[in-house]
Amino acid sequence: MDAGLLSPVTVGHDEAVTDAAVLGALVEVEAALTRAYVRLGIAPAEAAEAVASAGERVGSDVPRLAAASVAGGNPVIPLVGMLREHVPGELRVWVHRGATSQDILDSALMLVARRAVGDIQVSLRAVDAALAAFAAAHRGDVAAARTLTQHAVPTTLGHRAGMWLRGVRRAADRLAEAGDRLPAQLGGAAGTLASFVEIAGAGDATALPAAFADELGLAAPDAPWHTVRWPVTELGDALVQAIDAVGVLAADVATASRTEIGELAEGTGGGSSAMPQKQNPAASVLVRSAALRAPQLGATLHLAAAFAVDERPDGAWHAEWPTLRELLRLALGATATAAALAAGLRVDAEALACNVAATGGLLVAERLSLVLGPVLGAARVSELVRAAAQGDDLAALLSAEPAVRTLAEERGASSSGAFVTALLDPAGYTGLAEKFVDDVVAPKHPAAGQENA
Amino acid sequence: MDAGLLSPVTVGHDEAVTDAAVLGALVEVEAALTRAYVRLGIAPAEAAEAVASAGERVGSDVPRLAAASVAGGNPVIPLVGMLREHVPGELRVWVHRGATSQDILDSALMLVARRAVGDIQVSLRAVDAALAAFAAAHRGDVAAARTLTQHAVPTTLGHRAGMWLRGVRRAADRLAEAGDRLPAQLGGAAGTLASFVEIAGAGDATALPAAFADELGLAAPDAPWHTVRWPVTELGDALVQAIDAVGVLAADVATASRTEIGELAEGTGGGSSAMPQKQNPAASVLVRSAALRAPQLGATLHLAAAFAVDERPDGAWHAEWPTLRELLRLALGATATAAALAAGLRVDAEALACNVAATGGLLVAERLSLVLGPVLGAARVSELVRAAAQGDDLAALLSAEPAVRTLAEERGASSSGAFVTALLDPAGYTGLAEKFVDDVVAPKHPAAGQENA
Amino acid sequence: MDAGLLSPVTVGHDEAVTDAAVLGALVEVEAALTRAYVRLGIAPAEAAEAVASAGERVGSDVPRLAAASVAGGNPVIPLVGMLREHVPGELRVWVHRGATSQDILDSALMLVARRAVGDIQVSLRAVDAALAAFAAAHRGDVAAARTLTQHAVPTTLGHRAGMWLRGVRRAADRLAEAGDRLPAQLGGAAGTLASFVEIAGAGDATALPAAFADELGLAAPDAPWHTVRWPVTELGDALVQAIDAVGVLAADVATASRTEIGELAEGTGGGSSAMPQKQNPAASVLVRSAALRAPQLGATLHLAAAFAVDERPDGAWHAEWPTLRELLRLALGATATAAALAAGLRVDAEALACNVAATGGLLVAERLSLVLGPVLGAARVSELVRAAAQGDDLAALLSAEPAVRTLAEERGASSSGAFVTALLDPAGYTGLAEKFVDDVVAPKHPAAGQENA
Amino acid sequence: MDAGLLSPVTVGHDEAVTDAAVLGALVEVEAALTRAYVRLGIAPAEAAEAVASAGERVGSDVPRLAAASVAGGNPVIPLVGMLREHVPGELRVWVHRGATSQDILDSALMLVARRAVGDIQVSLRAVDAALAAFAAAHRGDVAAARTLTQHAVPTTLGHRAGMWLRGVRRAADRLAEAGDRLPAQLGGAAGTLASFVEIAGAGDATALPAAFADELGLAAPDAPWHTVRWPVTELGDALVQAIDAVGVLAADVATASRTEIGELAEGTGGGSSAMPQKQNPAASVLVRSAALRAPQLGATLHLAAAFAVDERPDGAWHAEWPTLRELLRLALGATATAAALAAGLRVDAEALACNVAATGGLLVAERLSLVLGPVLGAARVSELVRAAAQGDDLAALLSAEPAVRTLAEERGASSSGAFVTALLDPAGYTGLAEKFVDDVVAPKHPAAGQENA
Repeated sequence: MDAGLLSPVTVGHDEAVTDAAVLGALVEVEAALTRAYVRLGIAPAEAAEAVASAGERVGSDVPRLAAASVAGGNPVIPLVGMLREHVPGELRVWVHRGATSQDILDSALMLVARRAVGDIQVSLRAVDAALAAFAAAHRGDVAAARTLTQHAVPTTLGHRAGMWLRGVRRAADRLAEAGDRLPAQLGGAAGTLASFVEIAGAGDATALPAAFADELGLAAPDAPWHTVRWPVTELGDALVQAIDAVGVLAADVATASRTEIGELAEGTGGGSSAMPQKQNPAASVLVRSAALRAPQLGATLHLAAAFAVDERPDGAWHAEWPTLRELLRLALGATATAAALAAGLRVDAEALACNVAATGGLLVAERLSLVLGPVLGAARVSELVRAAAQGDDLAALLSAEPAVRTLAEERGASSSGAFVTALLDPAGYTGLAEKFVDDVVAPKHPAAGQENA
Repeated sequence: MDAGLLSPVTVGHDEAVTDAAVLGALVEVEAALTRAYVRLGIAPAEAAEAVASAGERVGSDVPRLAAASVAGGNPVIPLVGMLREHVPGELRVWVHRGATSQDILDSALMLVARRAVGDIQVSLRAVDAALAAFAAAHRGDVAAARTLTQHAVPTTLGHRAGMWLRGVRRAADRLAEAGDRLPAQLGGAAGTLASFVEIAGAGDATALPAAFADELGLAAPDAPWHTVRWPVTELGDALVQAIDAVGVLAADVATASRTEIGELAEGTGGGSSAMPQKQNPAASVLVRSAALRAPQLGATLHLAAAFAVDERPDGAWHAEWPTLRELLRLALGATATAAALAAGLRVDAEALACNVAATGGLLVAERLSLVLGPVLGAARVSELVRAAAQGDDLAALLSAEPAVRTLAEERGASSSGAFVTALLDPAGYTGLAEKFVDDVVAPKHPAAGQENA
Repeated sequence: MDAGLLSPVTVGHDEAVTDAAVLGALVEVEAALTRAYVRLGIAPAEAAEAVASAGERVGSDVPRLAAASVAGGNPVIPLVGMLREHVPGELRVWVHRGATSQDILDSALMLVARRAVGDIQVSLRAVDAALAAFAAAHRGDVAAARTLTQHAVPTTLGHRAGMWLRGVRRAADRLAEAGDRLPAQLGGAAGTLASFVEIAGAGDATALPAAFADELGLAAPDAPWHTVRWPVTELGDALVQAIDAVGVLAADVATASRTEIGELAEGTGGGSSAMPQKQNPAASVLVRSAALRAPQLGATLHLAAAFAVDERPDGAWHAEWPTLRELLRLALGATATAAALAAGLRVDAEALACNVAATGGLLVAERLSLVLGPVLGAARVSELVRAAAQGDDLAALLSAEPAVRTLAEERGASSSGAFVTALLDPAGYTGLAEKFVDDVVAPKHPAAGQENA
Repeated sequence: MDAGLLSPVTVGHDEAVTDAAVLGALVEVEAALTRAYVRLGIAPAEAAEAVASAGERVGSDVPRLAAASVAGGNPVIPLVGMLREHVPGELRVWVHRGATSQDILDSALMLVARRAVGDIQVSLRAVDAALAAFAAAHRGDVAAARTLTQHAVPTTLGHRAGMWLRGVRRAADRLAEAGDRLPAQLGGAAGTLASFVEIAGAGDATALPAAFADELGLAAPDAPWHTVRWPVTELGDALVQAIDAVGVLAADVATASRTEIGELAEGTGGGSSAMPQKQNPAASVLVRSAALRAPQLGATLHLAAAFAVDERPDGAWHAEWPTLRELLRLALGATATAAALAAGLRVDAEALACNVAATGGLLVAERLSLVLGPVLGAARVSELVRAAAQGDDLAALLSAEPAVRTLAEERGASSSGAFVTALLDPAGYTGLAEKFVDDVVAPKHPAAGQENA
């Protein structure tokens, strides 16, 4: 039994993927197959009712089914036996008719995935809305941009949030694509549909997979995909991408929450068992733990795809099931946690300003090179910057340079002091930061932001 | 120095991604930036010529540049120094103007990737053509389908090949999408383009990235993606998917090449240093070695994406470069090897037939259940199948069953023997195998095969 | 809730690592801490009783605790609250006294791991015993050795089994080492034990971790290891190694179970939902599914170790918990499944012999090169081997060679036919295969087999 | 060609593992095999000379050998051909006599690994020495310990460095073990040594592997390990562990180098192409990039081990070669870079102190709970701490508490102010930090620090 005691990021968010949900989906899929037969006029209408009713009577005794699944290696074999027990004699033949275990299990996993993806999409939309609002609210709030841990140049907090949003939005688009494509599986013993042809003739056998898929609300496969596993890996890749995207948000919040930085705080910090003053960025920590785990699960799905030998492989298929489920669970948890995180994110404007000012103007050193380099020479600019880095007053140093005074005059500044003050103002060197916020918060062409980086 | 001595799958296929190619791309990118300035009327035309000419003079001394890259952690810093040495004083300012190392390196990697993807696409098209021809040629060749290592039901060799083809074609489509999307990178020190605004004003700075991208034949970014790394992970995922797809082909060929199975052989088997009679499926082995390695490289790209903290991360970005390159190299090698493999694939028709017959009719046991179950009862069918599995003559056993005789008559068979013979004929139980071959070899709606499983 | 419905390999084998077991271990660890205080004379004896009794009253409501763990990011914080509710006022202070969440959670995970490792060791010993018996029983059974899927030279089935055994034995030794080393964790808020020094003085604080470890039956740490995570990664590596080892057994059994090879069969094959004749190697398939998943979980543990920043990291620690647990679960399931597999393994002697004979003597081609090369020339030997590969009778071809007759006489053979027969006998070319069986089945120096490859 | 242009962490450190080194090792191994024959009196002494001389004449044309390796899938096949060209007729038979490609390639990789491990050990000893000196030098320097990014309690910089050292030392021990165990490989075509028995008789064939191993300075195998791959995975695990260990150092240095924290700086920071004031922690960044990549390479080795089917697998073995080499290269680079990093590490004592003081005494909040909780009540302590967190003067608040005054008197403090000052002094609450430094810097029992955490 696993209620997420060791995986807090998933607690409360994984209802769509529990064992009970999987068992429910297996039963639904068996029922849908019979309904598809009925829809095509192959099976009598009572067959569908009988299988549906048997499904209800099979109930939800997951441990019993799990135990029975070991001998044959999958839960469908015993489930079919249970269903048959509950279907009257003459209709019994319509239980699982013509199907192979993989048809049922793959379709059930796609059904579970489809619902989980729906939940993840809800969370991603919430993240999107919260980040868009946050980016708009802090569109012009000047912040120190950091590269390789060091203050680099100014940016705005809104632009940073816009970057989180771009990653999340892209991931949401990809996940939507993958979710819409999730196909039903129906191939019979080895992907030829021979059993269905025997039962229903070639014409109806050809039509059956689409009818079956439609009953389940899944995409119609253009052929069985027992060993052509891109529906699984593309979903896996999209899930990992979604976790990556909220992982970046969490990484930046964790960093900005550091005691010495203090620019951001989670709405409700995690307490400590020993230190009452601590406000741990608990949501970020949990999201990061998911981001560290997900990519390797995605790799397992790819390995399973590449090792899909024969018409059903000897281990690779079985490796997919728990891996895909865990990846769904992580994506459910990470995106839901990120939604709460994004919605509750608090800014310490004072800390932002304090950090921007911390290096005494060095945050605009690049600008000084560009503007003053031509008149002072690069070497002299470097010299002044280094002096400032050691504590000298940069504004005073610059104002004292004759060439700077000349430049200030040329540019029509009221005084060289005013010129230097403007030059050193970080808010004057945020480039297109605010434009990028506007682009992402309210894109002119709704889909444009989703096409390219 | 690494010429692929320990990675034979890549030998001869990785020209697009060598260190020399990367250095060439770095130089091209620096030149393209200057040309973009010229195009927008910001820099004088001579600047572009001077930078291009400096690029040629910098040459291709990879070890020198590599050695110089350690101190700053990336090769762009020393490269810019070298370029500046070769540009006359007044034009020197246009070298790397306003850019950050990441702009150049990311753009160069995308350029290298774009070319490698082109080469991979050529190989995938060759795989596609060879597999389509193979599937068509062996459309109806009956073969034993195997699930969990055991003979299951009949299929056709063409259908199996069609499945390989479906995976390859899907991967090719995904790779084409990813390749078309590869964006140039231009953000300046921290993704605000502040330096470019300072140099060229906000309007021209806004236009610069697209001009730069156009010079490189890359997609125009809608914003800098210094820490929004989906262009890298989506490319990585597509590369892994391509390797997965040819991995399935290789897995099946390796299996079918087993001495006891012997259905397929590579055109040119690998020799052995000790055993002259061996015909090793060397190409399959090499492709499989790539398929075992690629997914973990893809995972590393996702980890790097999720840990893209700040405006440039403290390690994650650096982890991408060699990983993406190795993944490109593996995809180049695996797909080129697969193209040769697919083109040279030979079939042993006798072995195919022998394996189909090996279980004395049990390959159609499922059919017997479906056809005879209703008249003999499932238990009796199982009994007969088990007897046949122990060596009894299944046709004789069946013909001796009164209920079978009755059924033969009902179905208008000329004799119960003829009825049983037809029933046991594996060629009569391949379902839609040949239809699926036709669908994939000559799809009616060209794009249909690419939309769903 | 997860009862293993999607992970049949673990069903029935993971009692040691369930959420309930983890909760039990957390409670045990809190009790052990108080007992350690009592043992050193710091806390009154009643404190230990009160905490133990509170532990019982807290019960095993895993979902409640899991839900409560989200806010703070770990289950220890709410657990401590619950325990305190059940301890009388004056003794309450001894609940969790001086400890940090990580002390409790790490120690509990080590306790859980220790027990799981014990179970895994029992399974590995069963695998060892079964494989040793199997290797002895089939010590000299000649079998075709296969390299790169092709028949190479003869070996014996016993030697192949001995190789499985060597891998398993080595893994068992490594796991035993790792299991013996699993340390308790006790460092206080940041690994300085400052709280314990405050409570008990430096002397007793120094002694406390060993007393605590002793109460738990874990190794005494020589220092806190909050961010020095080799106890976790070394355990993880040993678990993966154990799964690798049984994975090789499963890979060979799956291959040898192939319909066309048929040398081995599992005692109880998995049935099929559609094909009554199939005897799937279900245990091998399940073990292989674990072997495909485990290495990536091990990688996650290493990533978590490498990213153990600060005095407690912001995500890496949390990523360990579910990953280590899943790895334990996989090792429990894979080794238990392998034990049943090894115990039930059946040999088809006829198939073995048939496969050995299948290539008409080519299995000893290497021997022909060695023995006849010097007298016939390598080119002629190759010629004859190739002719045989195309169906000619190799014995007849060889006997017809004058140089072979001469050699037969020189070697004192009764006739050239007898000489050729002996030369072509695969049983005469198994080298040291039987010696290697003897070495591993009954090693003269018990530990010798464990020191080197 | 790959000179590390995209992997700066490896530049200048990978001489032991270049293609040229591998080719050299392959030649050495072939020569050692012949020498082993000579040593046992099987081959004439001139054979060894002839093979050694041929090895020299084969030269070092890596690209030619790499190109020739593709057809057969490994470089040994063409190398043997080249060697034979250069050995006179009657001695030619002693080239590669009785061996299989895997014997040579595995042994050569172990030889390369052995030398690389030697280099890595030198680097790890340098890291050890530098960290030990650093820990001793900063044994008592009070620093803020951080958990989940937040200031927690005081620690000392020496203790933190001691933790890095513990991880590094443990990894060095494990790597030494793995390095000492690296075995030669000698099994012949399928691990039975049948060819060697044919050539030399059973007795000499039994002695040959140890003689061969001795010639190479490798461990004698107790049996061939063609498909028992723990020598590779245990080495891989140890390499990853070494990278993990220096990864933690790098993670902490990168964090402590943050502009806002500023406690540590690398001796020589990496420059920036645009911002002259930046001192990037370039070495830490490079080490971290390796730490992000290594675990997934280790996973690939485990996958290859678990999929070592037959007597030589169809892809898994080939996947090991480049993966093990890249892992060696990363370990060489990461440890060498870490050695420089550790040796050059600079401390900003002022920043340390400033950060310790930043929270106005809250760093000892835990101590206040312990000491004052019993007299003030936990609620009151929390209240005061929260007030201080909002800017109030904690010392003043505490001194104003009557219960604190009483306690100060009870404890014999000269004044309640002095009592509070001492209580709030972070240096008074570092627990056993200095003891732990002493333990690791100068362990009483040299091996003790290596046994447990």
